[in-house]
Amino acid sequence: MNKIITIGREFGSGGRELGRRLAEELGYEYYDKEIISEIAKHTSLSEEYIQQIVEQKPHQLYPITIGHTMNFASTYQIKQIQEIYSAQCDILKELAEKSNCVIVGRCADYILKDYKPFRIFVYADIENKILRCKSRNQANESYTDKQLKKKILQIDKNRAKYYNFYTSLKWGDKVNYDLCINTSNASIKNIVNIISKIFK
Amino acid sequence: MNKIITIGREFGSGGRELGRRLAEELGYEYYDKEIISEIAKHTSLSEEYIQQIVEQKPHQLYPITIGHTMNFASTYQIKQIQEIYSAQCDILKELAEKSNCVIVGRCADYILKDYKPFRIFVYADIENKILRCKSRNQANESYTDKQLKKKILQIDKNRAKYYNFYTSLKWGDKVNYDLCINTSNASIKNIVNIISKIFK
Repeated sequence: MNKIITIGREFGSGGRELGRRLAEELGYEYYDKEIISEIAKHTSLSEEYIQQIVEQKPHQLYPITIGHTMNFASTYQIKQIQEIYSAQCDILKELAEKSNCVIVGRCADYILKDYKPFRIFVYADIENKILRCKSRNQANESYTDKQLKKKILQIDKNRAKYYNFYTSLKWGDKVNYDLCINTSNASIKNIVNIISKIFK
Repeated sequence: MNKIITIGREFGSGGRELGRRLAEELGYEYYDKEIISEIAKHTSLSEEYIQQIVEQKPHQLYPITIGHTMNFASTYQIKQIQEIYSAQCDILKELAEKSNCVIVGRCADYILKDYKPFRIFVYADIENKILRCKSRNQANESYTDKQLKKKILQIDKNRAKYYNFYTSLKWGDKVNYDLCINTSNASIKNIVNIISKIFK
């Protein structure tokens, strides 16, 4: 069975960088935004639309039913959401079958549980996440710290809702992971140097 | 400044073994039950009594006051609890000043926060904790799994109450630690081989 590493991460914690560096260090495939492109190929939907769907809280996309009445557009939208999630499950399983890999986000830890992935969750305190957001994206420099904090918390809230909705587990709860890494006081490079040894 | 590693741990997760092996591997001092003996030396109280106090929920030891009425025995007992905690703080700081060390439990991550300790929390799922309890202590073999589960959960509940009471933080909440390690699917020896490299 291939070695699968899944990375859950708070926004601004450096989880994506950690995943990318870990894959490089180990010579594993790395999947992140590529999964959205693959979903687009598997469905008739555009990458932009899929991105929009997966970044929203799924329960907001589901219609309010009054009795058994439900309008056609909503039913169609539900079908699309289900189609996207179903394609995501198929693609993740295909990737897991193909080779050793690191997968960021997308409920991969849950969807691939039969493949016994090593499940990492990456987090940091809010001050460090604000600093990281500023340093990695010039566009974020125009935000005040207060605005950035609000943005970070909102993105994480959406990630939590998405994860909780599809898995019935609590996003970021340590019981669902093998290793939880706080990047507040550490360099991602150093962390990768050490944890890559788990897989060698 | 000396290197200080603190270990919080769920009962039966192997956290104590992890701490001991980590100290051995790094050549650091290791403190666990020794702290209770030191408290006894610093106070007029017996090790047994101190053990009993620190294993109880502290709020249970505090008296119920009706208006300003409080009985003498309770006031005396509060004084002892405060004396024990105060001695614990002094001893932990002395140990941190003395040499590099690994300290298990005793709110050391919080009490020594000015020493910037590396804070580890060790946990596991309940099935693995039951197995570990059985394998390390023959006395536990007479317990049914249900009884052992109850015992484990009760001890952890007390540890949480103790920690939350003195620190106002949530015991086991990943935000209070640098690294949270799930020992359910891993050998303690292998974990120590890898994480010891953080400190080399």
